[in-house]
Amino acid sequence: MISILPVEGLPPIREGADLGALIAAAAEVREGDVVVVAQKAVSKAEGRIVRLDELEPGEDARRLAGGRDPRLMQAILDESVRIVRERDGFVIAETRHGFVCGSAGVDASNAPEAGMLVLLPLDPDASAERIRRSLGAGAAVIVSDSFGRPWRMGTTDVAIGAAGLRPLLDLEGRRDPTGYELHSTMIAVADEIAGAAELAMRKLAQVPAAIVRGLDLAGEGSARELIMPRGRDLFR
Amino acid sequence: MISILPVEGLPPIREGADLGALIAAAAEVREGDVVVVAQKAVSKAEGRIVRLDELEPGEDARRLAGGRDPRLMQAILDESVRIVRERDGFVIAETRHGFVCGSAGVDASNAPEAGMLVLLPLDPDASAERIRRSLGAGAAVIVSDSFGRPWRMGTTDVAIGAAGLRPLLDLEGRRDPTGYELHSTMIAVADEIAGAAELAMRKLAQVPAAIVRGLDLAGEGSARELIMPRGRDLFR
Repeated sequence: MISILPVEGLPPIREGADLGALIAAAAEVREGDVVVVAQKAVSKAEGRIVRLDELEPGEDARRLAGGRDPRLMQAILDESVRIVRERDGFVIAETRHGFVCGSAGVDASNAPEAGMLVLLPLDPDASAERIRRSLGAGAAVIVSDSFGRPWRMGTTDVAIGAAGLRPLLDLEGRRDPTGYELHSTMIAVADEIAGAAELAMRKLAQVPAAIVRGLDLAGEGSARELIMPRGRDLFR
Repeated sequence: MISILPVEGLPPIREGADLGALIAAAAEVREGDVVVVAQKAVSKAEGRIVRLDELEPGEDARRLAGGRDPRLMQAILDESVRIVRERDGFVIAETRHGFVCGSAGVDASNAPEAGMLVLLPLDPDASAERIRRSLGAGAAVIVSDSFGRPWRMGTTDVAIGAAGLRPLLDLEGRRDPTGYELHSTMIAVADEIAGAAELAMRKLAQVPAAIVRGLDLAGEGSARELIMPRGRDLFR
């Protein structure tokens, strides 16, 4: 059996917060657990916040903004290496990490105050590793964020940072019960874990972490393994 | 707490199998549970199988096959309304249901016998509803399949059929703790549930179903709600 336990009772997360210590104080974390922490909490702890009134929109930001705030668009462009699609002020961009997502992960919701934007962590794997060390329980850590998907409605949470687990489960070369050899069967378990944790988090109720218990995925890995290499990507 | 319980001890699924009755006999299903059933099992029960040696590849299939079996490509084309991308015999297609996925969901792995291909159910929502009625426990049902994603490595399981739950959780208009109104915040909970269930299934060990317990999503809905309407889709 796999269990997903929300981590309740965390205080509002401020810059400098030690998320691992806060989670360890609020919940019983066991060896082998996967602790999933919402990106928003990680970014706040790391001070990855900009104020709209500190942003000076350039020409590109004004052109792309549509009916939206051109300063928000400037923040998005500052986080992006490439615009993948844009329409009416809505932008899907590739971030400096290589993630392709809406608004390059820049988000005004759940910011510490109105007029502030939350940016993705600079190095979400390093964030996960720091939380993991601070937890000190032999658990793995995933930093999750909500991404949209082409062709499908709604967001699902995926892993943008990982420490202490293998994010991909590769069945290549194994055989199914009829002896058929499985090709290119690679399961993005870290993304499935992030999505499972989202079911137990409540975006509106300050529950930015959940524990997924009962998996056996310990190992070393990086959420960068979840980014498709350019040469294999049919959608660049 | 949310629990994910694999449904163990199911027999190999043959055409005509009553999946709901088999699952009810193998596991204790409770009101409010979400029972996730792998598409492969559903398709086998529904006889959605073709034999490679019954397929006569046409010109398009031969051209697109690359180094692969042109009869497999013919089966893929028969299931497709549109080829979205293709390279070296690998095809991403839109199925007649509107799903965009690799090989239009046609799969040679885990087929009943070598030389057979498993196709997606004709109407996965109806499949889910039939299983739900046969379960008779007030549970919801999701039919899941493993889909790849642009830009990200590996597959995650998503919902291709649903009965008895709302597949999307819409937070539009609700406010976060700072009073910021959430726009376009729609969570594809059915896909996250399918992915969570995948973590408890074992593709190689005949565990084609799992129970997700502890959610509160009962309602009416269709997996078709998870398909992005053409007008909103930036990736058509």
